[in-house]
Amino acid sequence: MTGTLYGLGVGPGDPDLITLKALRILQSAPVIAWPAPPKGESLARAIAAPHITHDPIEIPIRMPLATSRFPDRAVYDEAAAAIGAHLAAGRDVAALCEGDPFFYGSFMYLYERIADRFPVVTVPGISSLMAAAAASKGPLAARNDVLSVVPGPLSVDALRRAIDQADCVAVIKLGRHFGKVRTLLAEMGLVGQARYVAHATMANQSTIPLADVDGDSAPYFSMILVHKRGAAWR
Amino acid sequence: MTGTLYGLGVGPGDPDLITLKALRILQSAPVIAWPAPPKGESLARAIAAPHITHDPIEIPIRMPLATSRFPDRAVYDEAAAAIGAHLAAGRDVAALCEGDPFFYGSFMYLYERIADRFPVVTVPGISSLMAAAAASKGPLAARNDVLSVVPGPLSVDALRRAIDQADCVAVIKLGRHFGKVRTLLAEMGLVGQARYVAHATMANQSTIPLADVDGDSAPYFSMILVHKRGAAWR
Repeated sequence: MTGTLYGLGVGPGDPDLITLKALRILQSAPVIAWPAPPKGESLARAIAAPHITHDPIEIPIRMPLATSRFPDRAVYDEAAAAIGAHLAAGRDVAALCEGDPFFYGSFMYLYERIADRFPVVTVPGISSLMAAAAASKGPLAARNDVLSVVPGPLSVDALRRAIDQADCVAVIKLGRHFGKVRTLLAEMGLVGQARYVAHATMANQSTIPLADVDGDSAPYFSMILVHKRGAAWR
Repeated sequence: MTGTLYGLGVGPGDPDLITLKALRILQSAPVIAWPAPPKGESLARAIAAPHITHDPIEIPIRMPLATSRFPDRAVYDEAAAAIGAHLAAGRDVAALCEGDPFFYGSFMYLYERIADRFPVVTVPGISSLMAAAAASKGPLAARNDVLSVVPGPLSVDALRRAIDQADCVAVIKLGRHFGKVRTLLAEMGLVGQARYVAHATMANQSTIPLADVDGDSAPYFSMILVHKRGAAWR
């Protein structure tokens, strides 16, 4: 009997936004794995922490701060080997994922290394997208809207094309691209229908009209929500 | 002291995919409201049912089967009046929402009628989008992908433009538009990278390569997921 790898969405930040299903798997998993920066705390581990009442074996997956398009393969190869050894020995492994595992998540790098040898189950989580909409007090999309999720690192032309074709837009991965995105939205006449949300559902959550946000950069855990028919949802 | 209206995401179908936060609010709300067809069962109510252990006052919101662009305003006016009376009397009201309240949800129609008079809190839920990705065993989007959510009722031209500009696409609200969407995806050479998911996380869940799906219509609770770089995630 081999173990099962669970990709466990732990939600966007508020520990109470974990699902009952993820909680049950988390609390019975003999092994947990979690992504983390080179040094310091794992956000996924921190979100799950109040719920971890047993004493699981823990596998940190510490990623170099990637500037390249593809993350460091060796780190995932090593993590997959460690996880695979537990699975082969019959121990389930819960891989903790911020938000939802398959929404721009790093879980895919474990999935593609494990799924041909062991059972893998993905448990969806509340994504930052839904959390930001709730925080911003307005619908993400409605009726027959086209909703596009657009990563900030794209070129200005690629951003413009994607935003042009959508009724509602979430620009994610802002960071140092924030100024570029704000300038483009201004050129497109969309700043008035745009809201900036940072750290949705966390203690330091903030929601501000984009027009009121200064500076050229933004935290990683932030996004801009645009609805071209802004008036439809105040 | 007035009550608070909670927009409560109850998730996509599996009752265990409710969050701890939504569960706590659900189980302490003296009043619950839920959308339903003209006759018969409410899906949102059915998803929440195993968790309703107290005996709340219940407000059904029965919508005519809408073929028009805007739902029947009178039904929401009436529901908002009933909910408002409870809020004014100091009773919290939990409005149950399938999936996530602000992801193409009808909660916005209550929100816009209530939010200027009473406190409203939206509790995000697992949307059908994340549930379908988990069921389909592949990432919804990754890295710098543009992800677009596209409603099936749009015209072929509008669908084509939206799909053209995205790396990953979720076509929702398929119903009688399924045949039109499949024909378009075939013309665009994308059937091989498309998966069909119906009733994600429910007992009758199915996930099938789009190429293997027959017929011209699909259930309401289905979607097509396309990833243009399909090979990247098998």
